[in-house]
Amino acid sequence: MSENSKSQHASTQSHAASAIARDQQDAIAHLRDHYELPEDTIYLDGNSLGALPKAAKKRALEVVETQWGKDLITSWNKHAWIDLPMNVGDRIAPLIGAKQDVKNDPASAQVICCDSISVNLFKLLCAALSLNSDDGKRTKILSQCDNFPTDLYTVEGLQALIGSGKCELVLCEEEEIEQKIEELGDSLITVMLTHVNFRSGYIHNLPKITELAHQHGALVIWDLAHSAGVLPVNVDEHKVDFAVGCGYKYLNGGPGAPAFVYAAKRHHAKLQQPLSGWMGHAKPFDFAVEYQADSGIKQFLSGTPSVISMSVLDAALSVFDDVSIQQVRDKSMALTSFFQQAVEDADDLKGLKFASPALPEQRGSQLAYTHDKAYALCQALISKGIVADFRAPDIIRFGFSPTYLSFQDIFQSIETLKQVMRDKTYELPEFNRKQAVT
Amino acid sequence: MSENSKSQHASTQSHAASAIARDQQDAIAHLRDHYELPEDTIYLDGNSLGALPKAAKKRALEVVETQWGKDLITSWNKHAWIDLPMNVGDRIAPLIGAKQDVKNDPASAQVICCDSISVNLFKLLCAALSLNSDDGKRTKILSQCDNFPTDLYTVEGLQALIGSGKCELVLCEEEEIEQKIEELGDSLITVMLTHVNFRSGYIHNLPKITELAHQHGALVIWDLAHSAGVLPVNVDEHKVDFAVGCGYKYLNGGPGAPAFVYAAKRHHAKLQQPLSGWMGHAKPFDFAVEYQADSGIKQFLSGTPSVISMSVLDAALSVFDDVSIQQVRDKSMALTSFFQQAVEDADDLKGLKFASPALPEQRGSQLAYTHDKAYALCQALISKGIVADFRAPDIIRFGFSPTYLSFQDIFQSIETLKQVMRDKTYELPEFNRKQAVT
Repeated sequence: MSENSKSQHASTQSHAASAIARDQQDAIAHLRDHYELPEDTIYLDGNSLGALPKAAKKRALEVVETQWGKDLITSWNKHAWIDLPMNVGDRIAPLIGAKQDVKNDPASAQVICCDSISVNLFKLLCAALSLNSDDGKRTKILSQCDNFPTDLYTVEGLQALIGSGKCELVLCEEEEIEQKIEELGDSLITVMLTHVNFRSGYIHNLPKITELAHQHGALVIWDLAHSAGVLPVNVDEHKVDFAVGCGYKYLNGGPGAPAFVYAAKRHHAKLQQPLSGWMGHAKPFDFAVEYQADSGIKQFLSGTPSVISMSVLDAALSVFDDVSIQQVRDKSMALTSFFQQAVEDADDLKGLKFASPALPEQRGSQLAYTHDKAYALCQALISKGIVADFRAPDIIRFGFSPTYLSFQDIFQSIETLKQVMRDKTYELPEFNRKQAVT
Repeated sequence: MSENSKSQHASTQSHAASAIARDQQDAIAHLRDHYELPEDTIYLDGNSLGALPKAAKKRALEVVETQWGKDLITSWNKHAWIDLPMNVGDRIAPLIGAKQDVKNDPASAQVICCDSISVNLFKLLCAALSLNSDDGKRTKILSQCDNFPTDLYTVEGLQALIGSGKCELVLCEEEEIEQKIEELGDSLITVMLTHVNFRSGYIHNLPKITELAHQHGALVIWDLAHSAGVLPVNVDEHKVDFAVGCGYKYLNGGPGAPAFVYAAKRHHAKLQQPLSGWMGHAKPFDFAVEYQADSGIKQFLSGTPSVISMSVLDAALSVFDDVSIQQVRDKSMALTSFFQQAVEDADDLKGLKFASPALPEQRGSQLAYTHDKAYALCQALISKGIVADFRAPDIIRFGFSPTYLSFQDIFQSIETLKQVMRDKTYELPEFNRKQAVT
């Protein structure tokens, strides 16, 4: 064995021991028992689609077999389907730091579950416009080039409808946001950003950007797709105006789970959103001809909610019942650091270029690496039971869902990754045929 | 026994015998086996929420347990989640008379499954506006006062956003539609109507109204919520421009099942809809900064679809695999006629006032009756296992889903209804406490 091999072997041994020790000390290790995880798979893609909580599976069967099948239409009352959007919102609220208590004070609600992120962003953009166009003096929406595309497309859609003169989209690079806010000043309607970048995991300075925007009279809309359920956001504390978030990533609500909207209570009375379906009406069952929006967060509802999907999300959220979001965040940072260090220490992995912020405090629960053959590499890993994902053009993305991953999972992933890189399995033609992946 | 009692008894006997005979001759009676129906219940509310098809239950478990739980993110390809909106659209298309063949010619698709009716109506209103405002010369949207409220609210929402000067909502009574089209002429952007009235079941003359609108250069948007899956619509044949429809009524897709959009192929190239989420992009997985709408029906997609709910709807639609929509319609008309006649023949039911069109050809698969105590009457019936629903202010509504109801069900419902009316069970306080119902 060469000196180098010996040193590599020692490093591996040390990481293995460390993984075992860390799992023993993990304060939220027991949460793994809440999930049905497939055997022979280590799932590093919970940032795309969270794993299946046992409670979600149980509820899916219950809502279909008993509630729908047996109680049929009466379930709207009997099983409180009608309250699902508010009740699910109430479970999400503490995860993002929104104070509310639907049971005792429904008017306190600021978070509601409904529709998709794209549709909800459209509502929020219009809401911001209705509150803050300042009689046409404010016309600009600031975002970043590398925002998740759907967020930008939503502005483009709005422009096509009302004219880009009323809502010009200004894009800048990640690091230019603050400077741009200063520059655009009182022409800004809103700053719309994704809190955690979907590729790199970069975390925007939400408190600072929010405060700066407010200093210039602008509102903020935060997309919490890669934040909710994995790190504290504290929307109330930082006086965030609006936010959207995703039900199917770290909240584990199942494929295409409904999204959520946060709208600060102070804006409820004055805002308008145009997707005024009957569920957002103050009295939906009066079937009145004229629309009168609910005075609270329910004004963000539109059509009939997807009861099966929303029920599944509701049950999935029980995973967070007895854990603080800070505990989840602590483990998340430990997991990404462990992975990052192990990659750095492995000679076999020198071909991977680190493409996320260096410090765990500055990134979400994911790590990005670039590689010329990132797509094929990802497929090769999946074939060996390590599920990561590819993001164009050359990124392989590893997501670390702290509520079901162990440090030993991370260790095992690295070992497999090393093997794939050593053997160049990713050169095989079978891994180079592209398919759509999400 | 009085002469009158004797005659009533004979009438009942005759209806009982007729029900048995009709069930024996029913060409689609076997479809009932596709469903899990609760015992001791006769479900006359399939027009609010369809019953549970066995295939839907099986699929719910499969999509949750196997596809999500075991195959996780890979299911987008492995289980073709990504194709669900198009594939479900392909199953709905023949039910409404839209020609397409997604498998062999994806560009032929005109029907796609997505979002809710409310959200989809907003897209279609905007699409109509983008195609047919005639540089601002056309500004009016014609609908009827008694349309389903969400349809009207959607126009109000659009008005709040773009100004009512660009999309004035003109409402008229059911019977005035044609006259109003003539009157408004070339100021009309679109006529937006619900094909089958949600309260009375009245069917608009879709071919005639569509043709008349076209003569005046207006487009049509038909809401098929109470049509799809229960009567032929023939959207292609009648040159309908746009339509929306419901997944959870006669299509039995489960509570809050996603809705669908029909957009005639001839409009795809020129229309614009503003809810431009990433799933409607020509190449969603390129994550391009600029939105480029898909050139076909997929441009109506917005955010990530609700995979669990959509899969359940997909499976539910298998009920229609081996039946023609005309067969369903024939049975539907026979069911409503049988019920109508039995009510007319029953002395005990003189207190119910018929509130639907008299001829089965002129109404959908439902019957409305007014009664001072309609709400309590409805509750009293439900307590005896006959599920109907109440619509404000004084309507009790009976829905007849031809794919799972038998004529003997109808007979039994009438007998229970007679008993409740005779005993005035609806006077009991327990049936007079209002709850929200849908």
